[in-house]
Amino acid sequence: MASSIYPFGGTVRSDDPRSRDKTIVGGKGANLAEMAGIGLPVPPGFTITTEECVRYLAHGADFSPELKDEVAVALRHIEQAAGKKFGDAADPLLVSVRSGARVSMPGMMDTVLNLGLNDETVQGLASASGDARFAWDSYRRFIQMYSDVVLGLDHHLFEDVLEIAKEDNGFYADVEMQAENWQAIVGEYKAIVRSELGRDFPQDPHEQLWGAIRAVFDSWDSDRAKVYRRLNDIPGDWGTAVNVQAMVFGNMGDTSATGVAFTRDPATGERAYYGEWLVNAQGEDVVAGIRTPQYLTLAAREKAGAKPLSMEEAMPAAYAELAAVFDLLEKHYRDMQDIEFTVERGHLWMLQTRSGKRTAKAALRMAVEMVEEGLIDEKTAICRIDPMALDQLLHPTLDPDAPRDVLGSGLPASPGAASGAIVLDADTAEKRAERGDAVILVRVETSPEDIHGMHAARGILTARGGMTSHAAVVARGMGRPCVSGASCVSIDMASRTLKIGSRELAEGDVITLDGSTGQIMAGKVPTIEPELVGHFGVLMEWADRHRRMKVRTNAETPDDCRTARGFGAEGVGLCRTEHMFFEESRISAVRQMILAEDEAGRRAALAKLLPEQRADFHSIFEVMAGLPVTVRLLDPPLHEFLPHADAEFEELSEAIGIGVPTLKRRAGELHEFNPMLGHRGCRLGITFPEIYEMQVRALFEAACDVAQTGDAPVPEVMIPLVATRKELEILKALVDRTAAQVFEEKGRTISYQVGTMIELPRAALMAGEIAEVGEFFSFGTNDLTQTTLGLSRDDSAKFLSAYVEQGIFARDPFVSLDIEGVGQLVGLAAERGRETRPDIKLGICGEHGGDPASIAFCEGQGLDYVSASPYRVPIARLAAAQAAISANR
Amino acid sequence: MASSIYPFGGTVRSDDPRSRDKTIVGGKGANLAEMAGIGLPVPPGFTITTEECVRYLAHGADFSPELKDEVAVALRHIEQAAGKKFGDAADPLLVSVRSGARVSMPGMMDTVLNLGLNDETVQGLASASGDARFAWDSYRRFIQMYSDVVLGLDHHLFEDVLEIAKEDNGFYADVEMQAENWQAIVGEYKAIVRSELGRDFPQDPHEQLWGAIRAVFDSWDSDRAKVYRRLNDIPGDWGTAVNVQAMVFGNMGDTSATGVAFTRDPATGERAYYGEWLVNAQGEDVVAGIRTPQYLTLAAREKAGAKPLSMEEAMPAAYAELAAVFDLLEKHYRDMQDIEFTVERGHLWMLQTRSGKRTAKAALRMAVEMVEEGLIDEKTAICRIDPMALDQLLHPTLDPDAPRDVLGSGLPASPGAASGAIVLDADTAEKRAERGDAVILVRVETSPEDIHGMHAARGILTARGGMTSHAAVVARGMGRPCVSGASCVSIDMASRTLKIGSRELAEGDVITLDGSTGQIMAGKVPTIEPELVGHFGVLMEWADRHRRMKVRTNAETPDDCRTARGFGAEGVGLCRTEHMFFEESRISAVRQMILAEDEAGRRAALAKLLPEQRADFHSIFEVMAGLPVTVRLLDPPLHEFLPHADAEFEELSEAIGIGVPTLKRRAGELHEFNPMLGHRGCRLGITFPEIYEMQVRALFEAACDVAQTGDAPVPEVMIPLVATRKELEILKALVDRTAAQVFEEKGRTISYQVGTMIELPRAALMAGEIAEVGEFFSFGTNDLTQTTLGLSRDDSAKFLSAYVEQGIFARDPFVSLDIEGVGQLVGLAAERGRETRPDIKLGICGEHGGDPASIAFCEGQGLDYVSASPYRVPIARLAAAQAAISANR
Repeated sequence: MASSIYPFGGTVRSDDPRSRDKTIVGGKGANLAEMAGIGLPVPPGFTITTEECVRYLAHGADFSPELKDEVAVALRHIEQAAGKKFGDAADPLLVSVRSGARVSMPGMMDTVLNLGLNDETVQGLASASGDARFAWDSYRRFIQMYSDVVLGLDHHLFEDVLEIAKEDNGFYADVEMQAENWQAIVGEYKAIVRSELGRDFPQDPHEQLWGAIRAVFDSWDSDRAKVYRRLNDIPGDWGTAVNVQAMVFGNMGDTSATGVAFTRDPATGERAYYGEWLVNAQGEDVVAGIRTPQYLTLAAREKAGAKPLSMEEAMPAAYAELAAVFDLLEKHYRDMQDIEFTVERGHLWMLQTRSGKRTAKAALRMAVEMVEEGLIDEKTAICRIDPMALDQLLHPTLDPDAPRDVLGSGLPASPGAASGAIVLDADTAEKRAERGDAVILVRVETSPEDIHGMHAARGILTARGGMTSHAAVVARGMGRPCVSGASCVSIDMASRTLKIGSRELAEGDVITLDGSTGQIMAGKVPTIEPELVGHFGVLMEWADRHRRMKVRTNAETPDDCRTARGFGAEGVGLCRTEHMFFEESRISAVRQMILAEDEAGRRAALAKLLPEQRADFHSIFEVMAGLPVTVRLLDPPLHEFLPHADAEFEELSEAIGIGVPTLKRRAGELHEFNPMLGHRGCRLGITFPEIYEMQVRALFEAACDVAQTGDAPVPEVMIPLVATRKELEILKALVDRTAAQVFEEKGRTISYQVGTMIELPRAALMAGEIAEVGEFFSFGTNDLTQTTLGLSRDDSAKFLSAYVEQGIFARDPFVSLDIEGVGQLVGLAAERGRETRPDIKLGICGEHGGDPASIAFCEGQGLDYVSASPYRVPIARLAAAQAAISANR
Repeated sequence: MASSIYPFGGTVRSDDPRSRDKTIVGGKGANLAEMAGIGLPVPPGFTITTEECVRYLAHGADFSPELKDEVAVALRHIEQAAGKKFGDAADPLLVSVRSGARVSMPGMMDTVLNLGLNDETVQGLASASGDARFAWDSYRRFIQMYSDVVLGLDHHLFEDVLEIAKEDNGFYADVEMQAENWQAIVGEYKAIVRSELGRDFPQDPHEQLWGAIRAVFDSWDSDRAKVYRRLNDIPGDWGTAVNVQAMVFGNMGDTSATGVAFTRDPATGERAYYGEWLVNAQGEDVVAGIRTPQYLTLAAREKAGAKPLSMEEAMPAAYAELAAVFDLLEKHYRDMQDIEFTVERGHLWMLQTRSGKRTAKAALRMAVEMVEEGLIDEKTAICRIDPMALDQLLHPTLDPDAPRDVLGSGLPASPGAASGAIVLDADTAEKRAERGDAVILVRVETSPEDIHGMHAARGILTARGGMTSHAAVVARGMGRPCVSGASCVSIDMASRTLKIGSRELAEGDVITLDGSTGQIMAGKVPTIEPELVGHFGVLMEWADRHRRMKVRTNAETPDDCRTARGFGAEGVGLCRTEHMFFEESRISAVRQMILAEDEAGRRAALAKLLPEQRADFHSIFEVMAGLPVTVRLLDPPLHEFLPHADAEFEELSEAIGIGVPTLKRRAGELHEFNPMLGHRGCRLGITFPEIYEMQVRALFEAACDVAQTGDAPVPEVMIPLVATRKELEILKALVDRTAAQVFEEKGRTISYQVGTMIELPRAALMAGEIAEVGEFFSFGTNDLTQTTLGLSRDDSAKFLSAYVEQGIFARDPFVSLDIEGVGQLVGLAAERGRETRPDIKLGICGEHGGDPASIAFCEGQGLDYVSASPYRVPIARLAAAQAAISANR
């Protein structure tokens, strides 16, 4: 059986790869072992594996029987290396007990320091260190920490006692406390434990140790850890390791110190040591912010104009040693390191190293510069950047230094920040935007009818709806910041006022949204515009060189197409045609078409729409000249276009000369119980071929016209919601027939393809047959997810979070593809499609086309392209490159 | 390449199995070849294959280039066998051209007789036959038929001319017309053709022949044929064969005759020759109902008390020969035959034989008696019965003791009884039936254009036509009662009134038909339940002996359970629990539960529901004692239970003491865009576990109580809408926990299973994992069809018929399982489920569980049971037996 414990430090040199495997010993344990292995000064210790934690939790918080002996052996290793004995009354070994999961979960997990102290050993520590104050301070710190973490007592109980003691003594700061003061505090602390728990604070160091190990394991399943994992997509079955390590002390006087450092600037990426330190302090003091730390380097201190000496100045020898360690570690790990260190009476100890977190901007700069320095290669640089982090760079962000008057918050549904006057409906948004006002559209929820208002607004705020609600999806597509599902917002349309939290606002009041955090703020908060050049440009160029899949965009306006092309889109993967139908100039004709009693009526209305639709295509084709443009024919159920309010019916009645009762009857006939599964997609084309005929005619007329003066587009006509080969056969014939007519009329031929979305399970299952007719497949994974899971995107917000919390879904399946379920169908369709048509073009145009995990899956399936909303195009380019690199490893 | 043409008759003896394969040469062609093969007198001819028809239609009505030569060769075969030449002016060969599809489609397809006549050959026919009247009569018949069928002229044009000619001559009947009268008619007919089409009636016999072949092929795609196929589930891609055959004449004087016959009584199944004949007539005269035919046998004539001589009496020699043929054919085909014959100047010719259509009752009797006679074995008998036809027997007939106000009577053309309002045309019948009215279609005679009205009507009454008229044949096929040839009925279409005997009635008046006696009664006559004994009982016993799959029922009331058990159900496959929630006594508590703001509120309401639900289960378990009962926990979205009208809200508000505005707000929050894909099924159980807890508690308390006094039921707790293993895991734990509690309280343990419906594509894909938890799968093919096809059952009616008509779906996928699409998922789930749990129990509980084609599929997948609605249980038993027999062949 594999070992449950791995020692490190001292004379240990383990060849077992498990001893440095983060999945086994956690990130902290692996890096401690690694540092010790390359000869850095690491206090001796051992790591209990994550496997042991998983086992412990699975067995109802019960340790495995072998663990006791293994811990005893490992403890002896520490004792030998440190030259002290655990529980030795004369010169006790003290240890720290720290958690360490596979990935860093800052502040989430528990730590106990100075473990091994009791009423006897504190005396030994005092005499061995020659510093009674230090010994009693350590003991009181230990009691407080242990009581909090292991015994579950409220830390305020202890803090209050300390405050009172300081007051009683007339002290201002902890440093004024002397040995006897701390000793008195220890007495009071022990009394608190006794009165709260009815038993004494444990004096047996071994009991202390096992209590701490148990507490670390238990902390993996604490509520805050669960929440953190959910927010950061960390699986619950990883478990945490436990690191037990000999204590070293930065608080043994003025030749002792402690600090944290980064080998480069984590905010800007600049190649300069960056960090903070405190003389005569324990590590927690730096992190906790009780004392204000000092700069590490002279340069940083001077730049900040700070007085307190830098470590470079105050402890030049230790600093030089530390700087050498920085360089060694960066070379060793080939990445910027985040380091914790302690100087104990002039002697440097390394307590931790790990890859440092960094801003997106810093990540880009470091990656590019490390390639230039020869530290890493291009592929490594590409894989260093979290694609989703690019989102930060592509949108305006709030000035971090500006004051914020936060009113409340909702879901961070679409990144970026925007300020503007509140408007409560789409028409008003459009009107005010036309006057040049910056507006924020605030709605209970949005629907397709609000599209023009969303487009006109700088940002969107909704009271209902999840991360994949209409508002969220559309806003992301448009690159507008959006906060959705803000239940703190209630709107009174009658008075055109709203409440956000406890604050009353009216239409016209200015608010600011931060779509990256979900915050809603009063007034205008200044923003910073993104810069998309320099390191960003270099890295994207590298990414393009290494990716196999093309990246297209989902866009249906010339503006969006232009944005996407600027971001590097290589075509349009999904041009929806229904949003075009909502424009004010044509909605009457659309409604007339829908409400017509017969084909003749529909044709009359369609004739009015033809020139408008042709103009739509014309402008898109101009922007995308020379590139493929996949146009999806009309898809949504017709009743989405219908009027709702009486006034709208009357308006329509006047416009088209049909009585309101007739219109209402027809509208009623179009009502559907489950429109998602209703009369939509190609079913419209089958039953009302004249609609698709008009669209196809508009498309090819526009294509011919554009080709006359410039590069022809490469139209790909996409038939939605196909479930059978026959549907595609009938509609492909319609497309071919109409195209041939147009080509004859125009005296010009455009090459084009006809294909289908694979968005129904049946289409995936029958892909072999369907590919006999269709020349391309585009995986419409939004609807494919809805049907495969039987899960409505619009309705699932209510229970989806419960599903994620209970571990039923690892992630929202509308955000990241359900690879094991929906992914099976994608794989099967790709395979069967290629069987009958080996050169079939395969792409994805669902929201998942902009999600890195889903993009990696697409690479694995050998898809030809992914299509993402314009602002996600750079993310997709990078993710596609990473996927290609991983696939070729 | 396989031949496109197969000759028969004369000296031809083909060994090619294609020559007798119905799929290749059609039913009529196969049987003609078969009869000729066993030495029966069949006029020589040839058949053009169905493949040629499919090819012709696929190539835009274009004959294959080889066909011309093959027809020429085959025509020479007829000429040699008949000893006459086609187009010979002295003694011309005349041919019939008839369609013949794989299955009989009575009256749907086109026929041309006497082809080969022209102004020259008519003279030759006159002299060769020695009967100028016959020759000219044949010619005028030919022109009229050809003009109608091939040239597309309205047959009324010709009928009017004939009526005027008879009036001018003072004739009453056609028989009074002499040669010169017919010759004059021919002249007038030719003038009609010339004036209507601007060209002469074709004189070239070869041109005539090709025109007729083309017309037969084209008739496959006529509107009426399409409607017939849709109603009878006949695929559109089968095509029809064309039979070209030497004419024989039943109208060459009093030694000639024509008739149709069945080897047993098609209405009762009695073993007695049954048929009608006419002396000196062509076959069409019998079927068209222009003359009233005579009985075939003496016994039948005497039983009916009819005057005109039977064939047995009038033509004893031909009759004896015919009777011998009947016996030979029945032995040869081992089935009751439907035969057409002609006697030409004393010489018997067989024109057709095929398996005869029969009522369900007759089918049962024949099948059972043929086993007793040693003609067929049990398995064959089982497979002889169309399971769907049992439907006729499972529904009520007229109460023999009820008073009847008899208006008159006609022929007992199709058994069964029905009451309804009189309607006088097919469109009205359809419209009123759509409104839910029971209607009786009353017509002078029916034609293929009336099919939709016949389908919509409860029964059919015609003033003219025999037992084998269009109305009779079609009504028997549809299982509608029919009284035909009721000369007591006269209809005035102008006033939309009718007389039956002496009584005046108007459209809308209610009458009752007894299709088993031919009686027509005023008003509604009460009916009684059928008795399922005798031949039915014997056959069902045989079926049970041969089937492998169990048959359960979908039922949720004790009454339904009792009915189903009476029909042989072996358990409940689907007991829905939501209908129980709608009962008036509990809907308030249900609504209170749904609208509660929190768990405590829900629990309070659920406590009220517990005893009610327990009582539901108690009564069902009593009926199903000892049998498995699959109970599905609450499935529909909660808002289905909500009030809609303001009054209901107010009522509820008073009942549960919550204000109307609050109730409306909660109700609004529950609204869903696509409830089918919303917060329903196990998602309710995950988010509101207290609901499922109540249901499970009620179920096990009832089971324990029932077990105390009798046989325990075997509860199978079914979790609906599972998409992931984890959902089932969580809810199975809830069921197990709750069951354990109840067992402890009751001091009794009931054995049970927990399983899931497979009704989402993802569940099918993940069946391997899900089966690790679930002990059974029940395929919920209704929802599985909805999700796999992305097709709402509630919304698809609008376009589904267009889909079936355009051949996109062969059949309504909610009626008969979409085997190639949804079936793949069923197969895959069964396979994967068995991989991880080899003894997993598999069943189907969608509507498809009562559909024979779907049941056959289930047998192929090795399912353990099918579950059908109570009245479909016998159908399912029979279909399961047939499927098992087919599978073991």
